[in-house]
Amino acid sequence: MPAPEARRGVFITFEGIDGSGKSTQARRLYEALAARGHSVDLTREPGGSEGAEQIRSLVLEGDPDRWSAETEILLFTAARRDHLEKRIWPALDAGRIVICDRFADSTRLYQGLRGPGLRQQVDRLHEMMIGTEPDITFVIDLDPATGLSRAKGRQTAEERFEDFGEGLQRQMRDGFLDLARAHPERFIVIDGARSPDAVAADVLDRASARLPRPVAG
Amino acid sequence: MPAPEARRGVFITFEGIDGSGKSTQARRLYEALAARGHSVDLTREPGGSEGAEQIRSLVLEGDPDRWSAETEILLFTAARRDHLEKRIWPALDAGRIVICDRFADSTRLYQGLRGPGLRQQVDRLHEMMIGTEPDITFVIDLDPATGLSRAKGRQTAEERFEDFGEGLQRQMRDGFLDLARAHPERFIVIDGARSPDAVAADVLDRASARLPRPVAG
Repeated sequence: MPAPEARRGVFITFEGIDGSGKSTQARRLYEALAARGHSVDLTREPGGSEGAEQIRSLVLEGDPDRWSAETEILLFTAARRDHLEKRIWPALDAGRIVICDRFADSTRLYQGLRGPGLRQQVDRLHEMMIGTEPDITFVIDLDPATGLSRAKGRQTAEERFEDFGEGLQRQMRDGFLDLARAHPERFIVIDGARSPDAVAADVLDRASARLPRPVAG
Repeated sequence: MPAPEARRGVFITFEGIDGSGKSTQARRLYEALAARGHSVDLTREPGGSEGAEQIRSLVLEGDPDRWSAETEILLFTAARRDHLEKRIWPALDAGRIVICDRFADSTRLYQGLRGPGLRQQVDRLHEMMIGTEPDITFVIDLDPATGLSRAKGRQTAEERFEDFGEGLQRQMRDGFLDLARAHPERFIVIDGARSPDAVAADVLDRASARLPRPVAG
């Protein structure tokens, strides 16, 4: 596979705790960039390709305890690899912008909170089998109490990732902010406590400053 | 997880090319040891536990090209991890003998033949996420031309592993013999060209020499 720097497109991910608005903001950035004439795709994890969605179902349906953390890490890495091969890498190679709702940072923090040593396993598997890091990662930052009250009412049985209590949400938030401090060249932290319109305008401004001008249609 | 040497049981695997008789011989050793009063389990790969069988189906059903080699390696490693956690490790920890029809050596050779670098990925994933090696591995050795003529007539659509031509079977045979030479403490090469009864008697003799006496019932 080509090294990440050989890909012509721009890979943008959205991360944040439950109810932060990251999915809404990923979709709004997609719509705004498309309206400006950019070649842009919107996708999500876990899932995002046909094979990855099947792996996602295998992991998330049924008894939540039927897979160990280690098996789950391997399955999600397989899903991510398929998503990259089938959808993300070809789009980036074609010069497109790819926006993904959650990516590897969520896995790092989520699995890392499940047990000692798991964060290192995720990192090593990522390095060995994935390789690709986003060009830009937006963290939609929000106080967990606000996020949880927003997230309630739209939860489905499948949303295990969004089944944390406030304490764990607080650890996830701290984890995202730690990652952002460690990789300032990649992360942009956005205040998610404002109205969706205000957040979307902020994200679009920050993204536009880093994107090439769209090719005239 | 406990280190492999902490497990009290004995882990025996059977490897060999298509039509070598390894599945028959795994079953016959299981029956012979059970008849002598050993606590013994018989299982197989890929699959062997409920979760691993579901992953096996996901990989082997449908278009053979729908997963890349890298994704397939991750999925099979996930299946093996589940099989070990749910079935093999608990049985070994209880002091049982576990006989498995195919294990990691098949994966090493099969994936290694698919492309450069894949054997190394299999080995690194094994070291990181599996760890366990068998105590005894029987290679049922057979000339590929004989094996292929035996294997015909019982092939199902799912048996992708048994869908090689003679040239690839020859490479697999050479690979098993190379592994046996490299790890003489673990491997026992058995001449598979004889009658099933003669092969079974040989396997039982060689296994008995390495096993503790069964506990009186």
